[in-house]
Amino acid sequence: MEVKDLNALFDELFPICRSITGQGFRDSLNLLRQYIPLEVKSVSSGTQVYDWEVPAEWVIREARLTGADGKTYASLEDSSLAVINYSAPVDNKISLSELKPHLHTLPHLPNAIPYVTSYYKRDWGFCLPYRVFQSMPDIEYHAYIDSEFIEGELNYGELLLHGESDREILLTSYLCHPSLANNELSGPLVLTLLYQKLSEWERRRYSYRFLINPETIGSIVYLSLNGNHLMEKMVSGLVLTCLGGPSTRLSYKTTRRKDALIDQVIAHLNKTNSLKIDVREFTPLSGSDERQYCSPGFNLPMGQMARTVYGQYEGYHNSLDNKEFMGIDSLFKSANEIEQILFALEYAGCFFNLLPFGEPRLGKRDLYPNMNNYMTREYSSDDIVDNRTLLNYVLMILNYSDGEHPMTWIAEKCDCSIFDLIPIINELKAKGVLSIEGDPRA
Amino acid sequence: MEVKDLNALFDELFPICRSITGQGFRDSLNLLRQYIPLEVKSVSSGTQVYDWEVPAEWVIREARLTGADGKTYASLEDSSLAVINYSAPVDNKISLSELKPHLHTLPHLPNAIPYVTSYYKRDWGFCLPYRVFQSMPDIEYHAYIDSEFIEGELNYGELLLHGESDREILLTSYLCHPSLANNELSGPLVLTLLYQKLSEWERRRYSYRFLINPETIGSIVYLSLNGNHLMEKMVSGLVLTCLGGPSTRLSYKTTRRKDALIDQVIAHLNKTNSLKIDVREFTPLSGSDERQYCSPGFNLPMGQMARTVYGQYEGYHNSLDNKEFMGIDSLFKSANEIEQILFALEYAGCFFNLLPFGEPRLGKRDLYPNMNNYMTREYSSDDIVDNRTLLNYVLMILNYSDGEHPMTWIAEKCDCSIFDLIPIINELKAKGVLSIEGDPRA
Amino acid sequence: MEVKDLNALFDELFPICRSITGQGFRDSLNLLRQYIPLEVKSVSSGTQVYDWEVPAEWVIREARLTGADGKTYASLEDSSLAVINYSAPVDNKISLSELKPHLHTLPHLPNAIPYVTSYYKRDWGFCLPYRVFQSMPDIEYHAYIDSEFIEGELNYGELLLHGESDREILLTSYLCHPSLANNELSGPLVLTLLYQKLSEWERRRYSYRFLINPETIGSIVYLSLNGNHLMEKMVSGLVLTCLGGPSTRLSYKTTRRKDALIDQVIAHLNKTNSLKIDVREFTPLSGSDERQYCSPGFNLPMGQMARTVYGQYEGYHNSLDNKEFMGIDSLFKSANEIEQILFALEYAGCFFNLLPFGEPRLGKRDLYPNMNNYMTREYSSDDIVDNRTLLNYVLMILNYSDGEHPMTWIAEKCDCSIFDLIPIINELKAKGVLSIEGDPRA
Repeated sequence: MEVKDLNALFDELFPICRSITGQGFRDSLNLLRQYIPLEVKSVSSGTQVYDWEVPAEWVIREARLTGADGKTYASLEDSSLAVINYSAPVDNKISLSELKPHLHTLPHLPNAIPYVTSYYKRDWGFCLPYRVFQSMPDIEYHAYIDSEFIEGELNYGELLLHGESDREILLTSYLCHPSLANNELSGPLVLTLLYQKLSEWERRRYSYRFLINPETIGSIVYLSLNGNHLMEKMVSGLVLTCLGGPSTRLSYKTTRRKDALIDQVIAHLNKTNSLKIDVREFTPLSGSDERQYCSPGFNLPMGQMARTVYGQYEGYHNSLDNKEFMGIDSLFKSANEIEQILFALEYAGCFFNLLPFGEPRLGKRDLYPNMNNYMTREYSSDDIVDNRTLLNYVLMILNYSDGEHPMTWIAEKCDCSIFDLIPIINELKAKGVLSIEGDPRA
Repeated sequence: MEVKDLNALFDELFPICRSITGQGFRDSLNLLRQYIPLEVKSVSSGTQVYDWEVPAEWVIREARLTGADGKTYASLEDSSLAVINYSAPVDNKISLSELKPHLHTLPHLPNAIPYVTSYYKRDWGFCLPYRVFQSMPDIEYHAYIDSEFIEGELNYGELLLHGESDREILLTSYLCHPSLANNELSGPLVLTLLYQKLSEWERRRYSYRFLINPETIGSIVYLSLNGNHLMEKMVSGLVLTCLGGPSTRLSYKTTRRKDALIDQVIAHLNKTNSLKIDVREFTPLSGSDERQYCSPGFNLPMGQMARTVYGQYEGYHNSLDNKEFMGIDSLFKSANEIEQILFALEYAGCFFNLLPFGEPRLGKRDLYPNMNNYMTREYSSDDIVDNRTLLNYVLMILNYSDGEHPMTWIAEKCDCSIFDLIPIINELKAKGVLSIEGDPRA
Repeated sequence: MEVKDLNALFDELFPICRSITGQGFRDSLNLLRQYIPLEVKSVSSGTQVYDWEVPAEWVIREARLTGADGKTYASLEDSSLAVINYSAPVDNKISLSELKPHLHTLPHLPNAIPYVTSYYKRDWGFCLPYRVFQSMPDIEYHAYIDSEFIEGELNYGELLLHGESDREILLTSYLCHPSLANNELSGPLVLTLLYQKLSEWERRRYSYRFLINPETIGSIVYLSLNGNHLMEKMVSGLVLTCLGGPSTRLSYKTTRRKDALIDQVIAHLNKTNSLKIDVREFTPLSGSDERQYCSPGFNLPMGQMARTVYGQYEGYHNSLDNKEFMGIDSLFKSANEIEQILFALEYAGCFFNLLPFGEPRLGKRDLYPNMNNYMTREYSSDDIVDNRTLLNYVLMILNYSDGEHPMTWIAEKCDCSIFDLIPIINELKAKGVLSIEGDPRA
């Protein structure tokens, strides 16, 4: 996907009034499906999922707050943030003082419209800039919200990109926030870019599952249907959120268990300066869908990847979170760096030396220069260093590939990055000396 | 029990000439039974217990050392320390030089009578102040000890205070030393106070076993009869000793395994400044009955609690260890602090989130303020902090109550004391969201 | 063996042109057998061993490089290093420029003859001092090597010295290098000294297996025949190499697993200043036969012991590695220190208190002074310290001998060396209170 395609896709998606259910969510998913062939699934309103229940589908047709002075103070046409998400219908003429409890503003950001939801408690209300709120005269107002709650469905989109093994990497994001950029569209857009990159890889050791759902309730629904499968097959996963913004580095939130393959990879890349990534420790106190994947009954190896993190920028959950703040380029940068991380992940597990009894005969496999007699030969000293270093890598990989030492550990023992070892791993695999657990070509 | 009751009980107990067997021990136990309904058990003299044998019961009627000058230099009537504990009978007129090997003094504490025993090697002798010893003229002496060894029994007192679970906390002390205060009566008296406190608790998660026996041989006898039961049911335990004296803090000797629940609790209370307790590492080289409970064949989760520790004060094992040194107030202080520790212990284990799949719906259980919209509401900032902190506690407890993270760990993760979490734990239990392993009300 | 015997044995062994197979190896083994009754074993040329094959036996009769000027520039008669080890036969008159690729020198050590091998790639060549190489005129040369490859055998020598248990300590070295001292003869000679020492021990807890083989292929052959036995029975082992030279301390290379009994012993001796030994961490990148024993399929508890380590001295793999550099005294020193290490190893494991329930009655076994009444007795204060310290050792050994705490750990807990505990361990064993796992006399 080119920059202009991503720009255009963003511009189509941005104004849609999305929620955790409803037409806005489906329309958004369909726009993404031009680039990532997600299968759209549905679960009926009212379905019990663990401690939760799929809510009625929210239909929103119009929302407008007008004064007796004829002015419009908030309108869904101007911003999908103008109405409380999941607002109940209302058609009342009321005084300013009666209206006030239904108005939401941000006094410290007088030009911003806040993002407010009330999914599980029936309420109605408007969100508007504090500047506008202050200008409202003490007159009668017409609060008009044409919304409806229907027995509909909750939707999500899913796609499995097969690899050599049926063990899976889960990449997921959410699509339930209306007109917000970094803390909404960055996630599914980077997911889309990643799909395009990974589908072009020559080989994939792991299978990659792509999932886009409404936040929280969507992942709980997904887990109720697929939790057992994930507990059996999932190697690691990433919730993608807030992947735009000006921050230089990606910011990784560890899995709850802290020792998943993805945690090891991030730690290794940082330690070896291969890619510097900020690290936040797992917490259940804030975050996105990893809170569900990492609830104690599942405790899945699920991390979360962000760049400019929720709660840490002014525009968080308000109308300042727009394309200018997010930056389309940031999305490409995030996708490129996550691709590198996933590439490292493919090689980060524990391998098996298939000739584990004594040292393998490297000579007969062209893996071993005759070291005893290179002393008088005309190697440049640089060549000697290179050959010896490569040989050391070979010997370390073979000695420690016993199913217990991850390749990241071996790389650190070699004082190098896993990226330095990948060509050798592939050569040793090609020569039949090295295998990986569950590798169908072993 | 009031201060005056404890004072009176102490004064009745103090002069009795106790030993590891015999009437003095039984009389003492019966005095305690006014306040703690221990059942008195007996084991016959000569019974084999592991490498040991229950010794013959010691009967002591009179002991007096008089000179040809008509003076009494040592007398059981004056002090139960005056005769070697388990002394053989004697009725001899002998010279000072023949007598000297049978006299025990403390030259560095010339006014103190030492406490000397010879349970397993037949010997006779008197203990007296070095000041008296120095005044003895070189004349003939009459050494008279009217004692006897009979086929009798060894006794101990035991009581089980039931809790919700049949898993047990063992609280034990010894009652074999004659007129010594800190290193004798403090232990069973604090045990008695604890019985009274714990029997008044509204609920007890664990069952509490109270045990008073003669030191060493008594706990070996007890283990020979109940060791298997303890290995199955005992969660943690405390040997109570030396709980009086002027030291500001309790002093805890860890269990041999160092990771018992009681060890975790003490470490947590110290770490969070909830209650500062000195900690001594387990050693088999000195101490009380924990040496038997922590012998390698049992290795029970048994710590030891003291205040002014044996061997660390002048009056240790001599007549300076009296009520003035010990202090009746010290016993109340010790009992109050140990009660706090046991209260923390009740909540210190690993709990289970009963809705572990995804986050529980806190809203529908009144555990969760609607956080998204508190921005324009009129909370004082203090309230917000409080509510958010409480919510954090709820979320941390629920996420980490997976049967693997002790509540002390969760409290430290929350940067608070376990005492801060107890109201929330009880609320979550009451709402059916949280349980404890083995909790019959789960 | 006296100094003069070892000197004479060395002088007989040194000039022999040994290789990984052949008469030189057998002759050398037979000379050693005067002092260590190794059984000589053989495996036929061509035998498959894992990824390897036993090579054809190398027969070398004569090797000489003469110039048309009548001078001899290299000759097997002058040094067994003069010919590439495993050189193919040649009988050619060739020019200097054709000859040069077959000449091996060390420009930075112009007087030294390098040691060059080409076991698995057919090649021929001479090794000579760079000083001689520089003096060679541009004339015709006669390269004459009378060698042959025959279907013969590979040999090794093995001996089991029985101990109380059938669990084994493996002591091994190699014997395939020609005229080199530190990096060849030091190993089998120290092994021979150790055999003589250990066969004179009053008792051996473990059985000791002595093995001398050609390096690499020899240990691979040995593992192919005995690897399963070793995995079942081997407690620890040492590859002996480079045990001469001027270094003050022994230098130990850890096992791959790093937690073998031998690793624990070396760490303990260092920590308690009982014997200071340099420690190198295991690496598969260089070394001797431990690379085979520690290949991932075996992962045996095999360390390596050296003094002046291969690669760390000028004469490594060249003719400067002679008796003067090595030092016969060094070998005695190495043997004495390794004997101490093995003596510590005999006691370093986990023992069992045979009376583990409660404290054993030390009194009735004469292991326990009556501590309560030593206050007025006439011990010198020194005696009290000694007796108390010994009693502490007894109590610590008994409490922690539960099959889980190694005696080195107990010694460190006692703040002493394992050598301080050995007399007590033996006393406790003699009194039937202490045993060792698998000890047939338990």
